Amino acid sequence: QAACISPTPGITEFVGTAMGDTIGLVIANVDPILHEKMKLDPRFRSIGILGGRTGAGPHIMAADEAVKATNTEIVAIELARDTKGGAGHGCLILFGAEEVSDARRAIEVALKELNRTFGDVYANDAGHIELQYTARASYAINKAFGAPLGKAFGIVVGAPAAIGVLMADTAVKTANVEVVTYASPAGGTSFTNEVIITITGDSGAVRQAVIAAREVGRKLLETMAGPAPSLTTPYI
Amino acid sequence: QAACISPTPGITEFVGTAMGDTIGLVIANVDPILHEKMKLDPRFRSIGILGGRTGAGPHIMAADEAVKATNTEIVAIELARDTKGGAGHGCLILFGAEEVSDARRAIEVALKELNRTFGDVYANDAGHIELQYTARASYAINKAFGAPLGKAFGIVVGAPAAIGVLMADTAVKTANVEVVTYASPAGGTSFTNEVIITITGDSGAVRQAVIAAREVGRKLLETMAGPAPSLTTPYI
Amino acid sequence: QAACISPTPGITEFVGTAMGDTIGLVIANVDPILHEKMKLDPRFRSIGILGGRTGAGPHIMAADEAVKATNTEIVAIELARDTKGGAGHGCLILFGAEEVSDARRAIEVALKELNRTFGDVYANDAGHIELQYTARASYAINKAFGAPLGKAFGIVVGAPAAIGVLMADTAVKTANVEVVTYASPAGGTSFTNEVIITITGDSGAVRQAVIAAREVGRKLLETMAGPAPSLTTPYI
Repeated sequence: QAACISPTPGITEFVGTAMGDTIGLVIANVDPILHEKMKLDPRFRSIGILGGRTGAGPHIMAADEAVKATNTEIVAIELARDTKGGAGHGCLILFGAEEVSDARRAIEVALKELNRTFGDVYANDAGHIELQYTARASYAINKAFGAPLGKAFGIVVGAPAAIGVLMADTAVKTANVEVVTYASPAGGTSFTNEVIITITGDSGAVRQAVIAAREVGRKLLETMAGPAPSLTTPYI
Repeated sequence: QAACISPTPGITEFVGTAMGDTIGLVIANVDPILHEKMKLDPRFRSIGILGGRTGAGPHIMAADEAVKATNTEIVAIELARDTKGGAGHGCLILFGAEEVSDARRAIEVALKELNRTFGDVYANDAGHIELQYTARASYAINKAFGAPLGKAFGIVVGAPAAIGVLMADTAVKTANVEVVTYASPAGGTSFTNEVIITITGDSGAVRQAVIAAREVGRKLLETMAGPAPSLTTPYI
Repeated sequence: QAACISPTPGITEFVGTAMGDTIGLVIANVDPILHEKMKLDPRFRSIGILGGRTGAGPHIMAADEAVKATNTEIVAIELARDTKGGAGHGCLILFGAEEVSDARRAIEVALKELNRTFGDVYANDAGHIELQYTARASYAINKAFGAPLGKAFGIVVGAPAAIGVLMADTAVKTANVEVVTYASPAGGTSFTNEVIITITGDSGAVRQAVIAAREVGRKLLETMAGPAPSLTTPYI
């Protein structure tokens, strides 16, 4: 289940795979016709491509580390309704770069981060909860949610959505945080069965809010369908 | 599979669970910041939360009985694209109340009704059909579909959507009913693979139309993939 | 798995079933109220109904052959987010006809074509790729994608969407083709986890582009999750 930065399967654009049915690719020179159809910024001839069937939060957090570490920009974050029959999103994230080596490096970093960023995803047959936290949000988080750069940031997700409402309420009551976004099945999601809030503020407060939401969300999910273990190892 | 109004799992907001991976919760005082982000009516400090992975019709009908029986209002009905890989919706329904005891009572009533309102859902590997009927529509049905209050009301659903088209045609040809809404994958659904009509009119006519649609829909579904039993016990 | 144009199960509107949990139906005289709610063209009293849980491309290509062969028109192509937990679409396609015999014939042709048009769909646990090709696009393809009538036409689909990006880039670099549409999770799909391009041009070029995309897409999909066989028999 760990990221696999493997020898390419005879395809120079292949970078690696990771959990969540994730694949990482690069294109050194995007075809000009396609470049235009994809509405890519003309500055970038190279792109890095990160996409998975399960997970949007884990990939956005991983991409955030990748943009911090490389000379790339996030040019698109698109969320499919997926998770292979689950309640959440899949994703397609594109990095723009002037050099393909930068795009490749970004994808490598992101693939390696995913094992960590899936750590506070907990799932069972009834649904899932997801928590994310960073002390310093960068450009991927800013692009995805409009969250302020350089500040602590957290994501609180509950599915089915009913659980997410209570997790959100718990988070904002626990500590003095600011709500950046509120998303629900009819608005802000791709019709997933989730309620998602994103929060910012003092790093201690954000972390405390996220942890409190995790406790209540996990208890509710486990009341519905038994043990809901972490998909990897909790990091928050 | 019956509604389980159980002792809370250490969380005062927990009310119970029911089939369709449904959970019922209450919040006595929604956090003011979240209250605003959720765009809740300022009159309601308490909310009841009903959400499930599978089912929207069953939950809306159950919520309709709950608002009839309690001092609450329906403040939101949101439909996810879900059913855990099936062809239909999941849902998030919010009740507003001035007192948390009213919100809790509404959720209790709704959870208990679900066993009945899943009674005319029939499913097999190819899809599902769903029928609903009430002699007197109340505020949840009015909120969800704009159907007239106090009149007989029916829902006819077929999935895959092709089946729903023939069920809809059968329903309106069978008896003198008025079509309230017509929804299909590209409009009025959350991209589900369903055609859904809602009807109103004389109670005998609505019931007759719904039953005729059920007969044809079930035959078609069973032609595709064998027996399509009721999920609980038919009530119409 | 072949199309089954069977004796009706006691329902005169039933035509047959085919793979992809597909059903074909006709209605000789659509009820006038429903006709209006469905916003059907008043010219057509009869409709043919083709719908499936899995597949939109295969059905659109099959419908294209059906309109070529019969006196019918395509009046609606609606794409659900479906594939039973997979990454793609399901569909509902409506044919309009003045005579029910024409509608029935169109559905029969389409059901028979599906076995072929699923031939370049390759799938495994990680996702799917799909290729379609015709030397001469007709009205279904024109309705669905706006592609020019009478010209060669191809569809290139990759899921997860990341794979589709590289397939698209490969296709347009391989031969001198024109891109008709580009669709991705956030635009042009029903939130599927796919990137889809459609192409037109010289028939040799379109075919060559589609084949090149197939090679790279299949390798990537198989790198993710092992063998990804054709669902039936490749035709391109």
